[in-house]
Amino acid sequence: MPRSHGSEIDTLIQLLAKLPGLGPRSARRSTLQLLKKRDSVMVPLARALEQVAEKIVICGTCGNIDTTDPCHVCEDGRRDRTTVCVVEDVADLWALDRSETYRGLYHVLGGTLSALDGVGPDELNIAPLLARAATGEVKEIILALNATVDGQTTSHYLAERLAEFGVKVTALAHGVPVGGELDYLDDGTLAAALKARGTVS
Amino acid sequence: MPRSHGSEIDTLIQLLAKLPGLGPRSARRSTLQLLKKRDSVMVPLARALEQVAEKIVICGTCGNIDTTDPCHVCEDGRRDRTTVCVVEDVADLWALDRSETYRGLYHVLGGTLSALDGVGPDELNIAPLLARAATGEVKEIILALNATVDGQTTSHYLAERLAEFGVKVTALAHGVPVGGELDYLDDGTLAAALKARGTVS
Repeated sequence: MPRSHGSEIDTLIQLLAKLPGLGPRSARRSTLQLLKKRDSVMVPLARALEQVAEKIVICGTCGNIDTTDPCHVCEDGRRDRTTVCVVEDVADLWALDRSETYRGLYHVLGGTLSALDGVGPDELNIAPLLARAATGEVKEIILALNATVDGQTTSHYLAERLAEFGVKVTALAHGVPVGGELDYLDDGTLAAALKARGTVS
Repeated sequence: MPRSHGSEIDTLIQLLAKLPGLGPRSARRSTLQLLKKRDSVMVPLARALEQVAEKIVICGTCGNIDTTDPCHVCEDGRRDRTTVCVVEDVADLWALDRSETYRGLYHVLGGTLSALDGVGPDELNIAPLLARAATGEVKEIILALNATVDGQTTSHYLAERLAEFGVKVTALAHGVPVGGELDYLDDGTLAAALKARGTVS
């Protein structure tokens, strides 16, 4: 098949198409944009990718992915070191940290227990969490796993394992999402929101 | 503000967010994916960007953006060199070439005439097109500009300028898009499709 451009450009399109949210069509559009903005986007992007790729490291303390070990969260002296928030994934850590409500430490499990997928406690970053709980420095562990079946199973398992360390174990509240319309919510969420209702005045 | 990751990662997110189709949210998701697929995606992507950035060149003959000059279209010996298809943008060249119906050469104008935006004939890649028409090698010039007001104005202008060279000048057909529902089409398209109707049997 005749080609309208060099194979290096094809390689670039194929690699961009692997990013979430970019299909083959938008990968082509992105590539064209990059070709047209060589100096302002393409070259800086190549450099940024290279720099980050060189430095990526998984934090030995909390499992966060960052460019330093300990990561920027663990080495931040302004954070409350007595609270650890347990999340499934780095994406959840980023999301919680963006909310700017929580200023403690984190612990990234790397997934959830799953009988179907054959994920047991040894496949997750659980032993280091228990070790952190055992040091006595941590006073509260917040379980912030997804509200899925696997997430909740993992929460229960962790609560049981953490009981022996005398640490306060809490979990995120269930309820109506802010900005959410009742009409579109599932029964489980509505039931949880009703059960956990609070006094207004 | 406390940070959950290094500034290099922030730079990467900001650069990815500049790509069409990727907002800040999907740029973050893409970055996380890249961090997790360092060897299979991130490093190859950095290398592909660098390689392409190093070689980008605008074809001196047709205005295509490619890694070689003349570009892969112009130097392809299997193409019909007597037909030149005029397009506004490299994206249009890629689109027409993907359709695998046309196997001639191209000419990228780099835009359309526009009184509003102050784009005159000198701002576009028009003089080289006239020079190509004057060589005598080209027998047909297909005007494949967008069916917008500016695109059609530019088509008329080009048709007039090309008249003196004794070259056949054609334009893409207007009509019902394949797979399109009549109900959703505008009056202009329907009128054009009716006017250009063909005998079925």
